[in-house]
Amino acid sequence: MSKELTSRTEDYSQWYNDLVIKGGLADYSAVRGCMVIKPYGFALWENMRDQLDKMFKETGHVNAYFPLFIPKSFLSKEAAHVEGFAKECAVVTHYRLMNDTEGKGIVVDPDAKLEEELIVRPTSETIIWNTYKDWIQSYRDLPLLINQWANVVRWEMRTRLFLRTAEFLWQEGHTAHATKEEAVEETLRMLDVYAAFVEEYMAVPVIKGVKTPNERFAGAEDTYCIEALMQDGKALQAGTSHFLGQNFAKAFEVQFLNKENKQEYVWATSWGVSTRLIGALIMAHSDDQGLVLPPKIAPVQVVIVPIYKGEESKAAIDAKANEIIASLKELGIRVKYDNNDNSRPGWKFAQYELQGVPVRLAMGLRDLENKVVEVARRDTKEKNSVSLDGLANHVENLLAEIQQNMFDKAAAFRTSKTTNADSWDEFVKLLDEKGGFIAAHWDGSSETEEQIKEKTKATIRCIPLNNKKEEGKCILTGKPSSQRVLFARAY
Amino acid sequence: MSKELTSRTEDYSQWYNDLVIKGGLADYSAVRGCMVIKPYGFALWENMRDQLDKMFKETGHVNAYFPLFIPKSFLSKEAAHVEGFAKECAVVTHYRLMNDTEGKGIVVDPDAKLEEELIVRPTSETIIWNTYKDWIQSYRDLPLLINQWANVVRWEMRTRLFLRTAEFLWQEGHTAHATKEEAVEETLRMLDVYAAFVEEYMAVPVIKGVKTPNERFAGAEDTYCIEALMQDGKALQAGTSHFLGQNFAKAFEVQFLNKENKQEYVWATSWGVSTRLIGALIMAHSDDQGLVLPPKIAPVQVVIVPIYKGEESKAAIDAKANEIIASLKELGIRVKYDNNDNSRPGWKFAQYELQGVPVRLAMGLRDLENKVVEVARRDTKEKNSVSLDGLANHVENLLAEIQQNMFDKAAAFRTSKTTNADSWDEFVKLLDEKGGFIAAHWDGSSETEEQIKEKTKATIRCIPLNNKKEEGKCILTGKPSSQRVLFARAY
Repeated sequence: MSKELTSRTEDYSQWYNDLVIKGGLADYSAVRGCMVIKPYGFALWENMRDQLDKMFKETGHVNAYFPLFIPKSFLSKEAAHVEGFAKECAVVTHYRLMNDTEGKGIVVDPDAKLEEELIVRPTSETIIWNTYKDWIQSYRDLPLLINQWANVVRWEMRTRLFLRTAEFLWQEGHTAHATKEEAVEETLRMLDVYAAFVEEYMAVPVIKGVKTPNERFAGAEDTYCIEALMQDGKALQAGTSHFLGQNFAKAFEVQFLNKENKQEYVWATSWGVSTRLIGALIMAHSDDQGLVLPPKIAPVQVVIVPIYKGEESKAAIDAKANEIIASLKELGIRVKYDNNDNSRPGWKFAQYELQGVPVRLAMGLRDLENKVVEVARRDTKEKNSVSLDGLANHVENLLAEIQQNMFDKAAAFRTSKTTNADSWDEFVKLLDEKGGFIAAHWDGSSETEEQIKEKTKATIRCIPLNNKKEEGKCILTGKPSSQRVLFARAY
Repeated sequence: MSKELTSRTEDYSQWYNDLVIKGGLADYSAVRGCMVIKPYGFALWENMRDQLDKMFKETGHVNAYFPLFIPKSFLSKEAAHVEGFAKECAVVTHYRLMNDTEGKGIVVDPDAKLEEELIVRPTSETIIWNTYKDWIQSYRDLPLLINQWANVVRWEMRTRLFLRTAEFLWQEGHTAHATKEEAVEETLRMLDVYAAFVEEYMAVPVIKGVKTPNERFAGAEDTYCIEALMQDGKALQAGTSHFLGQNFAKAFEVQFLNKENKQEYVWATSWGVSTRLIGALIMAHSDDQGLVLPPKIAPVQVVIVPIYKGEESKAAIDAKANEIIASLKELGIRVKYDNNDNSRPGWKFAQYELQGVPVRLAMGLRDLENKVVEVARRDTKEKNSVSLDGLANHVENLLAEIQQNMFDKAAAFRTSKTTNADSWDEFVKLLDEKGGFIAAHWDGSSETEEQIKEKTKATIRCIPLNNKKEEGKCILTGKPSSQRVLFARAY
């Protein structure tokens, strides 16, 4: 099984596709740029979604649902927003099909043209702020802390499964506040929630930072982000949280009566993460044998493979396996017993390795007699014979250890791939030969940022939030700079 | 608050709208026919969805996600299917907007016309069976038991919040089987799951039955349904489960190698329930004071309203309330404490009555001294003074009692509104004066069914599964009939 996978050194991009498709996470569909999320991939997304949803609710948010369609005129109301989203959207122009009068099958009914075209939402700020107008009258109606789980569509020309698809699943938080301070605080709170989720559950270390004006969300005053590093040395933006100022409130005339009895525009934030996170997860941890999934969100945490020799060993092993399953389930561990007769243990081993199941237990008659089981961990591929006594607790501890080890490994990798560059030559050389994050001085101008991007394909991923001030000179222009910013080539 | 509501006798339809909007469940949106599901309504949907999802998983199903868009040509592949869905669909024809060259704002870019139009899914049989073609080769790949939670769009001309909207949320199960028997079994299993959910969780009694050919899903061999009765005597189809035969397998060329090593077409089912269920829930239980929600799915099961007289009573009451909240939460009860100073207890009482919270606890200083609390139940509006000792258990039992009482009441109502009709005059009179389900003989022909519908607006809701055979004569044509079928006017 694993030998069908392309290795990372051979073709990183093909390796990624192999893992997504052969690992059973997703598949291409008949619709250009849209993917099918397969049951195993969707179970992973459900675990991620449920945990995020819990964290949103713990921070006071509630869910709601807004229309899939946005009237074309809404997009235009916020000038920067329409620039950002009009170029790649799906446009609904008609609402009926009919039988072709010349017998050419079904065609669009020309009489069913919409008066105003509808855009399939690429993001929902406009439709939501148009709704908030009716919901907000006074400071008593604030804050509004609302999240939506939804599908969105952006008509990307070059797509990759999970990383960039025309349709994707995400959540988008849209909050409304009485003061700027409160809105900024919310923006940063949700950035922290994202960072905590990605680090603690996905075992992927992230850098929290703020985007340069060039890289801001269309319509935001400030865009904060979490940036992760992939094994090929490229960065991936794993989540963003935007302080929108009063831009959308002004565009949609959303004012409230403040405590001083004066009309004021409402302050806004929005924040989102998407199925793209699954791409980050794959590229941060997996290896040439397949996926490596962190235990906290793995659909199956433990798989048990029986090794039968004849019918009587089957009954004995099944009985013992059922005991083990019960004891694992009691600890809340997601366990699968694969006693399917159609395939051999070796094939199963490779299959679960490919699917990234964190722990595999294998058990034959000899093991049973010795009161042991073979425990294999996916991350290090270590195998041990472990006593059946206290096995469940052993596995529980092992899952925690794997989770921590995966994070530590990714963090060490990132550290090894984060380098200072103090000259243009050094910068270019690092980018080409080492990759990763490069901390370098920049003069703060959009023009310089653009030039660097054109020359090297590297972008400023963020200005880290905990950045220390340091005098220096811009690597491109030599102009003075007060701090290093993080560059990388990115997904 | 409640006096702003229209009463049922005054204007049933307006009463329904008032409840949806003023009860905070949903709102109209700027997009024709699309609704906004507000946080309270969405929390209700989440509880329904989570329970259904659990029941699907317990019966062996897994979730996946398929594209929002369906290529136009896919719809045409199943002849009956396209007839049913082409007339009311949202059609994406372009993928880009641009600035108008004459300065008229943004317009559709004529150069960005799709080669083939995409339909926003009204249901996903076609795109899913096109995918199953790649997933199914042998009997070993079967059964496929997949469900999808998704938004769908049907361009309805006359819309009503929850009951009939252009976009709605639903789940659609799509299963693939090696034999007809297995597929039929699955169809009926899911009908049972729906009936169990609607009866046990929504407290709405349903009749399980099979649709006549006229009322079948477009592309199905048989459509089974659960039918509920609303307080105005109209029926509402609360869920459907379809046996699709080999129709979609043939349309999309999905064959498998059976155990005898022969190629055979795959057998299919599909089944779905939607946010329409919320409409059924409202109309089955609510009254002129507002919503009445069954405890098992109510977003808030118990609300506690403190009745303060001065600051010191506040501290004492808050302290006791927190004890009560802790004891309720320990039993897994969803409780809300409303100690908002901005509104008076009387206003809050009306508000929670409107929102259908099953149990309200009110507590003043006097109650505290007497070690009691006032317990009011929403369904019967009974109020009792209850000892603080063992209060949590009392509330737990009360919630179960309310759940049962709501079901019993709805069942008794349905019984009182189910009548036999043995002549055309009787049938018409019953429909106009009494409403409800009318059990009558029908000659079994589609023409007669159509005529009855044209003359009376009544449709055959279903042929009940447990129907007893009985010789009789069709109420319209007098032709022989072997069983009564259930007629009603319906939503």
